[in-house]
Amino acid sequence: MRRETNIEATVEALARLVGGTAEGETGRAVRGVAILDSAAADQVVFASSPRALEQALAGPAGCIVTGEKDDAKGRTVIRVGNPRLAFARLVAYFHPPAPPAPGVHPTAVVDPAARLSSGISIGPCAVIGAGAEIGADCAIGAGCVVGQGARLGPGCLLHPRVTIYPGVTVGARAILHSGVVLGADGFGFVYDGRRYEKFPQVGTVEIGDDVEIGANTTVDRGALGVTRIGAGTKIDNLVQIAHNVQIGEHVVIAAQTGISGSCLIESHAVIGGQVGLGDHVTIKSGAVLASKCGVTSHKIVRGGQTYWGVPARPLKEYLAQLAVVSRLAKKKVMSDK
Amino acid sequence: MRRETNIEATVEALARLVGGTAEGETGRAVRGVAILDSAAADQVVFASSPRALEQALAGPAGCIVTGEKDDAKGRTVIRVGNPRLAFARLVAYFHPPAPPAPGVHPTAVVDPAARLSSGISIGPCAVIGAGAEIGADCAIGAGCVVGQGARLGPGCLLHPRVTIYPGVTVGARAILHSGVVLGADGFGFVYDGRRYEKFPQVGTVEIGDDVEIGANTTVDRGALGVTRIGAGTKIDNLVQIAHNVQIGEHVVIAAQTGISGSCLIESHAVIGGQVGLGDHVTIKSGAVLASKCGVTSHKIVRGGQTYWGVPARPLKEYLAQLAVVSRLAKKKVMSDK
Amino acid sequence: MRRETNIEATVEALARLVGGTAEGETGRAVRGVAILDSAAADQVVFASSPRALEQALAGPAGCIVTGEKDDAKGRTVIRVGNPRLAFARLVAYFHPPAPPAPGVHPTAVVDPAARLSSGISIGPCAVIGAGAEIGADCAIGAGCVVGQGARLGPGCLLHPRVTIYPGVTVGARAILHSGVVLGADGFGFVYDGRRYEKFPQVGTVEIGDDVEIGANTTVDRGALGVTRIGAGTKIDNLVQIAHNVQIGEHVVIAAQTGISGSCLIESHAVIGGQVGLGDHVTIKSGAVLASKCGVTSHKIVRGGQTYWGVPARPLKEYLAQLAVVSRLAKKKVMSDK
Repeated sequence: MRRETNIEATVEALARLVGGTAEGETGRAVRGVAILDSAAADQVVFASSPRALEQALAGPAGCIVTGEKDDAKGRTVIRVGNPRLAFARLVAYFHPPAPPAPGVHPTAVVDPAARLSSGISIGPCAVIGAGAEIGADCAIGAGCVVGQGARLGPGCLLHPRVTIYPGVTVGARAILHSGVVLGADGFGFVYDGRRYEKFPQVGTVEIGDDVEIGANTTVDRGALGVTRIGAGTKIDNLVQIAHNVQIGEHVVIAAQTGISGSCLIESHAVIGGQVGLGDHVTIKSGAVLASKCGVTSHKIVRGGQTYWGVPARPLKEYLAQLAVVSRLAKKKVMSDK
Repeated sequence: MRRETNIEATVEALARLVGGTAEGETGRAVRGVAILDSAAADQVVFASSPRALEQALAGPAGCIVTGEKDDAKGRTVIRVGNPRLAFARLVAYFHPPAPPAPGVHPTAVVDPAARLSSGISIGPCAVIGAGAEIGADCAIGAGCVVGQGARLGPGCLLHPRVTIYPGVTVGARAILHSGVVLGADGFGFVYDGRRYEKFPQVGTVEIGDDVEIGANTTVDRGALGVTRIGAGTKIDNLVQIAHNVQIGEHVVIAAQTGISGSCLIESHAVIGGQVGLGDHVTIKSGAVLASKCGVTSHKIVRGGQTYWGVPARPLKEYLAQLAVVSRLAKKKVMSDK
Repeated sequence: MRRETNIEATVEALARLVGGTAEGETGRAVRGVAILDSAAADQVVFASSPRALEQALAGPAGCIVTGEKDDAKGRTVIRVGNPRLAFARLVAYFHPPAPPAPGVHPTAVVDPAARLSSGISIGPCAVIGAGAEIGADCAIGAGCVVGQGARLGPGCLLHPRVTIYPGVTVGARAILHSGVVLGADGFGFVYDGRRYEKFPQVGTVEIGDDVEIGANTTVDRGALGVTRIGAGTKIDNLVQIAHNVQIGEHVVIAAQTGISGSCLIESHAVIGGQVGLGDHVTIKSGAVLASKCGVTSHKIVRGGQTYWGVPARPLKEYLAQLAVVSRLAKKKVMSDK
């Protein structure tokens, strides 16, 4: 897809921007980024695999961001250690964010006892409760609801229709997508033999700096304590984070995963989509949970390897089990013939 | 459940309406549709299986929509090729939609630079951004947010509290249920060895004509390119469609399914609930994915059969594997005794 | 986490409040509840297991809610039959709900033909349709949309941004969290050989008394009949309840579970997270479905035991199957060496 931007830069300037080395026609003008199968002669693409490089070389792209030792066959390239990362920065350069102009829309409802810092934008029909604190340069989209006493650090971006319950704290530069709900009651009930009585959920949620949370994801408040999401953690759409969960820094959680109450997820864990963790699970730093796996309550999952299956096992073990079952079923079919 | 409508028609007229043949008391008055276990003498029911027909014949329904060769035992019937389809049209006939009166609610916030066609209804506290185009006869519910430059074709129905991010395109007659989010950022980050840096998501979403999307479902915008959903495709509640996914026409996707980035789903595929697709999966036309199955990244799933399990296998294979495991476990239990 | 409240009571008074027996310094002042690892000398904690009691005894908590025969080692305790339940009531005592002051916010849009009872609070930008009935003392959060003819019983609490479609009925004291959608169309289409035609969803939803529904959960309206959720049932976040489902009383459903069309779930069933039920499944009273299990269409699941796996089997059976597969895979690995 060709996207028109008015930004233009030489290959050399782009190389400087991403800390790389320009090669070939370094004075060539670049006017945008593109994906491999739709690049034009004034656009830059990236190649982070031999196959992608081959495809890039076969196309008309004016510039290719590639690895430090790749054979460029004489084409104009920018060489860097991490082509995908460099390209991400080029995308940001050619598509600078367009923050809304500061100001409070006349239809927004801001409690007189809310505290707004400078440079803030508050969209139509957004609602800010008493005692809420909104950090500098926050942009709060249309229809968002920020509850009493909630606090947002500077530079947060709330897309339309986010709900932040009272008392929740969000760090600097968080990005919350539409439909996110932070601080709803945890799922806590006590059975008295006939019916369930609510265990009041009087804790809160604390979100660190630079966290991004996807559309319609829910993070429940602690029962008594705090549900915590560490700095730099990225969470996809439709994820459920239950009460009292503790998530470290730079954790990645893909879509539709569910984390039950009081789980501890250490920094730098990677969790795929549709994964389920029972309550009180510990995921150690560096563990990788493959999509759709399930970890039973109170388990401790060690770091340094990948897990799959329900219940989750080390990947190798699970694949061995799948193989043995497949072999037996085939044997059975053969012997039945 | 008896629902009062003021609409009345003879069996003969209803038969004409659905292209069927009336039999029995064709002049009889029908005043509504009903389900089998609660029909009255002035209501029509349908029977698309021998068991349902038996139940219908045992009840008081004034008219039965049934197959072309079913034994009606002298009862008043409308014979058609597809009783369920004919009945759906009778339901629509007796329960005509009640679209809101055209007009923009005084509390709606419509940017002066938005373009509204004729016959449009915009509900309370809805927000329409600059440059957005709303096709003729669209109904936009309370609290919806349509971003800058988004475009809706004619006849769309947005239930309350839908978010359409800037630049997203929706075809004619789409139905979007409450809480739908179209165009949030895809889940794209690059790890630099210490932290995750955002890969800017600057693509968009294009939704075809006659698409219906269920409550709280999310469709992310492309990273650079377009996330596409083809004409006539129907998506249930709480489904996740990631960036750059390409979905063909007349695909059905049941609730809570997740489609990872860059998947290609060809037309007329059928996908059950809680299914998960890894990234870059291809589902060929006519494939059926049973509920809860999981397809690993980059796989190509052929059409013409049903798949189940994690990882997904042809159904027969999976059932054979389940059977062999069950047999072995029973043998083990016996030998332990 | 220490939370300041201005409420203070003696151990004796608290014991009376929960129907327990005070022991030790019964005149001691208690000023709040706490979790085990952060209690102070003027706070009460609870211990419902020997390990928790040991931890409580090792800490400084001024009062421990414990079982009737536990060895308190001379500490000040309140003895009760169900310590967790008693503690929940103490949490409620020290953290009384703070309902919003009655009144309709000037930015709320209430149709003149809506009927509001006394003591109601309606938040900013909430929308109440014609003919809707709101029971006494209901609190309706900012941005909620209550459709035409919907009815809420007395004492309901709708957190911000809930959608109730037209005609839906909710009982007394229901708690609906942010993003809940009640009454969206069920997923009903008829394939005519080329495309899907909508089966109009003209039924409704009826929610019983004392139901709590978590954030972003969706409950679809019946196709012709009613989707029903019985009194006292508790549903977690991001759950999908399809059209015509019948759920009994005091059922518990954890996060991200999906219940397909026309399922019947009897009272006092317990359903874990990420469970999937095919259509027309029956779950008998007292059955327990472990997280992530899947029940295939039309199955009847008997009460009195726990089920796991896809397809769901009695837990013992499933564990035996897992064990036999694990053993075989290990044997294979050994024989390959």
